[in-house]
Amino acid sequence: MAKYATGEPIYALATPFSPSALCVIRASGDGVLAIFQPHFTGDLLEARSGMAVHGFITGTDGCRIDEAMVIRYSKGHGYTSEEAFEIMAHGSLPVIRAISSLLEELGMREAEKGEFTYRAFMHGRMDLTEAEAVEEIVKARTVRGSSEALGRLTGSIRSEAEEAKDAILDILASLEVQLDYGEDEIPEEWTFPSERVEAIRRRLLSIAGTFRSSRLFSEGAIVVIAGRTNAGKSSLYNALLKEERSIVSSVEGTTRDYIEAEAQIAGIPVRLFDTAGLRETGESVEAEGIRRTEGLMKRADLIIYVLDPSSDDEPPEDPRVLPVWSRLDTAGRHDGISFSSVTGEGLEAVLDAAAGKLTRDLEALEDVPRIDSERQRRKLIEAADALSDAEKSMEFGSDVTAMYLQSALSSLGELTGEITGEDVLERLFSSFCLGK
Amino acid sequence: MAKYATGEPIYALATPFSPSALCVIRASGDGVLAIFQPHFTGDLLEARSGMAVHGFITGTDGCRIDEAMVIRYSKGHGYTSEEAFEIMAHGSLPVIRAISSLLEELGMREAEKGEFTYRAFMHGRMDLTEAEAVEEIVKARTVRGSSEALGRLTGSIRSEAEEAKDAILDILASLEVQLDYGEDEIPEEWTFPSERVEAIRRRLLSIAGTFRSSRLFSEGAIVVIAGRTNAGKSSLYNALLKEERSIVSSVEGTTRDYIEAEAQIAGIPVRLFDTAGLRETGESVEAEGIRRTEGLMKRADLIIYVLDPSSDDEPPEDPRVLPVWSRLDTAGRHDGISFSSVTGEGLEAVLDAAAGKLTRDLEALEDVPRIDSERQRRKLIEAADALSDAEKSMEFGSDVTAMYLQSALSSLGELTGEITGEDVLERLFSSFCLGK
Repeated sequence: MAKYATGEPIYALATPFSPSALCVIRASGDGVLAIFQPHFTGDLLEARSGMAVHGFITGTDGCRIDEAMVIRYSKGHGYTSEEAFEIMAHGSLPVIRAISSLLEELGMREAEKGEFTYRAFMHGRMDLTEAEAVEEIVKARTVRGSSEALGRLTGSIRSEAEEAKDAILDILASLEVQLDYGEDEIPEEWTFPSERVEAIRRRLLSIAGTFRSSRLFSEGAIVVIAGRTNAGKSSLYNALLKEERSIVSSVEGTTRDYIEAEAQIAGIPVRLFDTAGLRETGESVEAEGIRRTEGLMKRADLIIYVLDPSSDDEPPEDPRVLPVWSRLDTAGRHDGISFSSVTGEGLEAVLDAAAGKLTRDLEALEDVPRIDSERQRRKLIEAADALSDAEKSMEFGSDVTAMYLQSALSSLGELTGEITGEDVLERLFSSFCLGK
Repeated sequence: MAKYATGEPIYALATPFSPSALCVIRASGDGVLAIFQPHFTGDLLEARSGMAVHGFITGTDGCRIDEAMVIRYSKGHGYTSEEAFEIMAHGSLPVIRAISSLLEELGMREAEKGEFTYRAFMHGRMDLTEAEAVEEIVKARTVRGSSEALGRLTGSIRSEAEEAKDAILDILASLEVQLDYGEDEIPEEWTFPSERVEAIRRRLLSIAGTFRSSRLFSEGAIVVIAGRTNAGKSSLYNALLKEERSIVSSVEGTTRDYIEAEAQIAGIPVRLFDTAGLRETGESVEAEGIRRTEGLMKRADLIIYVLDPSSDDEPPEDPRVLPVWSRLDTAGRHDGISFSSVTGEGLEAVLDAAAGKLTRDLEALEDVPRIDSERQRRKLIEAADALSDAEKSMEFGSDVTAMYLQSALSSLGELTGEITGEDVLERLFSSFCLGK
């Protein structure tokens, strides 16, 4: 791909451009060590791969830029599998600028976004699902999100795809033995291994099905606290934020018609909304405000519906609704989840039930590797669909079946990046962060 | 010092807490490698010091947190001179949080600001002027600022202090030989080595004198464009910002009574102010606005005063004023620096003259190492004053002179941190950034 010309030496800042104790600038490409060596007092050329060498970096004007540790990577080692080095210098903006200028003057080009990972992919160090996982780790918002991405980085999707491909290739091979014979010479009747194909297909669909729940972990869930006026919504909202120990940021001062805070429930990043602000302002409610709250309810992954035990209110019929009863301290326990924002009793039960509802889809998929990419979901479904078409095609002859099986293989090949157009690669890698 | 108990293992994030390709988390203290090893799949205990080891980091719950490179440092090596390691992991917020929690659970304590450098200082890896330089590099705003700090980091002030101390010790030694004799037995008349002491004193004062100009590089200079209404101030301001290639940020939209932009002149970070906004609003000028502009003029390091050649305006008498004449294209060249904002002619001359005026104090001090610390300036002046007192004290007897020379030695010892109270150290290091 033209944008990512692999022949050129590249460099990039891999840490944020902001003053801090350390920064890391990485460079990759054939010959980068020899190019850089004259500007570093440590001996990089003789160092072992992976060795951090101490020294001073000197600009082309002969002035010292900084004291630094430089890690040398020989070809075949390191992130890109190319000859490479990583500079750990002081995290000072002028130092970062001066080192970047130096590398630029030495003929290196600032890397495009995702270009290091692109090279790792091109050199076969990772497949496409692993490459995508790199960026998913960086952008993850909870530990669960990043650790699931780490699973993908270490090949959980690749090995599933490979297993499926092996099985399909097996079937194709036995089918092709049959194709080699003339119609009259067929040694024995070949039957489509329906059960085996169906098992592969179901497995691929289960992996594809994890996409929605994975989005919960990466993008977060929208949780809305709703209910009638004075049902106890705001006190539940505040009590939950106090109870929940993993709060990311406290309530934002807001000019919107609802209050929002970030929290975590069972490792899922949650945007917790209190709609009380709107509902309780009575006649001053504007059409715009109502529209916004309705939009919010539509997008919600979970609606915690607060009921006052003394009222005749009923929870709405919606699979996303979790009904909870307030005023446990004064009105007593209701048949269902009761809590008191005053004594704190029952709050943990509310959180547990909310976590249960948010993760209900996940538990059925315990041993299935999760995906977090719409592209991967599409390829998995394409492969599953081709398998289902293969089965249906038996009446049209073995060669049609073989074609569908080949098509399933292609989809799996695109999933792992063996067969992927340059435009897809370019779009994919250019959404990465700099230095990756 | 209680806050920086050196016995404890510490860790800190050394890169900004913001998503990026990589993060670095460092840990230091006796036994940290053995504590961490069970949670890392690579072999740190057998690795050579300075080696980056590849592996997976696992939490106390057995779940993998991230794939990482961990650099091992043996005792006596590395930044703190303690046993230490540096984790380079994905720059993902949950990964940073999870690794921090892990190290916390393993009994490490999050480092105080500056605590790594404090340990390097306590273990004799750097003196106090070098330790201060670390933070100066991180906070520098231009390459010149960071490279001067790098000079201090590599001992430019320490070696000056040591040279001065050696010379003073020499003098003290010869003086003490004399003190050992009774008053009547003195072998020969001891004369105070005035010339030598005066040379040391002048050198210390020159170094102290670099403080003001160093501040220019670290904190930046205030440059104000002033002059009468319609003299051509705003067009010069805009032309300079266009001319000057190293502009850091363009003009801020501002609600203040003057316009401000950041630029660089001769490597000095400059806050460039255009006072035209105020002066030209005529009767609507408020007292508050005038007061602000006056305050700005008082703080200015350089005032570029723009004169219209056709007016009778005279530049104010002030050593900080650089008079420049506008309208070179229409009014012709004036006796002095003329420029045209229309053709761009003369703009470079304005910049050169501005640079010359800003750095005029610096040129006289070309071979003097610069300081960027009020503390260092104070200690240098104390030492110089004690030397001057020593000379004057000769009439009161050799023991008084010896006392003053000892006092000069103490000040130099405090400069390099050999003799420094814990409160001073604590104040000094706690202004560092995290992870340093």
